[in-house]
Amino acid sequence: MPNFETRASIASFGGKLLKLTHHSKTTQTPMNLNLFLPASAFTHPSRKLPLLIYLSGLTCTADNCSEKGFFQHGASLHNLAILYPDTSPRGLNLPNESDSWDFGSGAGFYVDAETDGYRDHYRMESYITTELPELLWGEGGDYRELIDGGRVSITGHSMGGHGALTLYLRHPELYRSVSAFAPIANPLNCPWGQKAFKGYLGEDQGKWREHDATELVRRWGEGKKGELRMLVDVGTSDSFASQGQLLVENLEKAVVGSGLKAGKEGVEVRYQKDYDHSYYFMASFADEHVEYHAKFLKE
Amino acid sequence: MPNFETRASIASFGGKLLKLTHHSKTTQTPMNLNLFLPASAFTHPSRKLPLLIYLSGLTCTADNCSEKGFFQHGASLHNLAILYPDTSPRGLNLPNESDSWDFGSGAGFYVDAETDGYRDHYRMESYITTELPELLWGEGGDYRELIDGGRVSITGHSMGGHGALTLYLRHPELYRSVSAFAPIANPLNCPWGQKAFKGYLGEDQGKWREHDATELVRRWGEGKKGELRMLVDVGTSDSFASQGQLLVENLEKAVVGSGLKAGKEGVEVRYQKDYDHSYYFMASFADEHVEYHAKFLKE
Repeated sequence: MPNFETRASIASFGGKLLKLTHHSKTTQTPMNLNLFLPASAFTHPSRKLPLLIYLSGLTCTADNCSEKGFFQHGASLHNLAILYPDTSPRGLNLPNESDSWDFGSGAGFYVDAETDGYRDHYRMESYITTELPELLWGEGGDYRELIDGGRVSITGHSMGGHGALTLYLRHPELYRSVSAFAPIANPLNCPWGQKAFKGYLGEDQGKWREHDATELVRRWGEGKKGELRMLVDVGTSDSFASQGQLLVENLEKAVVGSGLKAGKEGVEVRYQKDYDHSYYFMASFADEHVEYHAKFLKE
Repeated sequence: MPNFETRASIASFGGKLLKLTHHSKTTQTPMNLNLFLPASAFTHPSRKLPLLIYLSGLTCTADNCSEKGFFQHGASLHNLAILYPDTSPRGLNLPNESDSWDFGSGAGFYVDAETDGYRDHYRMESYITTELPELLWGEGGDYRELIDGGRVSITGHSMGGHGALTLYLRHPELYRSVSAFAPIANPLNCPWGQKAFKGYLGEDQGKWREHDATELVRRWGEGKKGELRMLVDVGTSDSFASQGQLLVENLEKAVVGSGLKAGKEGVEVRYQKDYDHSYYFMASFADEHVEYHAKFLKE
């Protein structure tokens, strides 16, 4: 019996976007996700594909980026699969789960929660790093013949940029490279991050630090863990950046302060003139991010 | 005083997507539209740009394709402007205007209505072929310095594919080429078309024929009006095609029956394996359509 039910198979850029559903053991809820397979998955099924994980931002489901991000265009060119997970479990009726758009439903923040109620379900870190890989390309995975689990990279937007950066920094053995669009880069010091960390991890800020990209980059430098393969784009007209929610400049300072390689050969942070926080921004640079990851995924 | 109010200017694929509003004399309502200008409009403003008009389908506004159609990607490569008009006037409270998704609001069908109530407002043919050109690139147009009114082509999706085909066939002097994604190609003979034509044009089917692409192609051949530059794509998994709403095969038969040039040098109808009716389909072939038009627009 397959792990996933295929709700739809939609032709896109020469390949197929599969809309999948399963009952997650990690979140103890049904979960939706999308998986894009480029044409070669069907024409040359014996050749395993590298995969790029895309983590979405606040309020999004797996569908937003599938429709508006144009990753399928680059993925077809470079012959990659793309995995679009959802941003949280849904429909649990936990306290505060549906009261605001920046906490609970649609806002899982890619951590394993430790607070009452949430700890049994809101475990998006384990879901992304353990359960989905097992069920998709692990030994019993539905797509084990098609996806090469040794060649996986990760990207994301906004809250998903935070997710991509922290999952890469916490589990470098899982991913070859990371990139982010307008990430929440220093959640310890912004309202979105503080609210989410308090709600999911409780009052102990020591725990928060374990999920803060800027903090983790600083430690990476101190631990001399070697090369970071990281590309970050943020728009100069991003209203959430100007409200202090993203703090990409703190991440950049941590890179420089830690003596990590900056620029094209290491951690590259680019400020894109006039771009905002929307999918218009993301779609404009999706091709470049896919190309960035393809370089490492083809090694 | 400019003709349009600019509600937003959004960076996209190196250029800008402008969200514009004006009070239309043709529809006697406020109308929204989007205009994409590629980078060169800002870096080389003295070089006039060719323009592609994109007409949207049922239920859509100017925003759907701007977000999900991927035309800005090709337009940036080929240095074209793109105009996304709305699909109807809105908010008039006419009888039946808001009762169904395939008539009235969001479903103007690109004709000048003749029925009571509608005749004073639902005049999308005049709006697209006369008012918008005057206000955008005509003598008093806000973008007359940037857009070359002598180099305009037209495309569209579903109801907008019907619009693109019929406006090109009725006004060949205005457009260099036409293309369509899953167009309502023979509205005389499908439920969507019959409902709309009855509602906007009344009972006289003679009038309906003037707005039917298949009928107009047949006459074009009989009138020996010369080359048709027309590209049509439709998916083989398009559920509206299988329900008999599109009838692209009738258009194709009219081409062949009229002795018009078929294939790459004339009217090309392509059946795209497995594609559906959605923006996933459109986005997948947007680049090819932009390239098709660019060939004629650069002549």
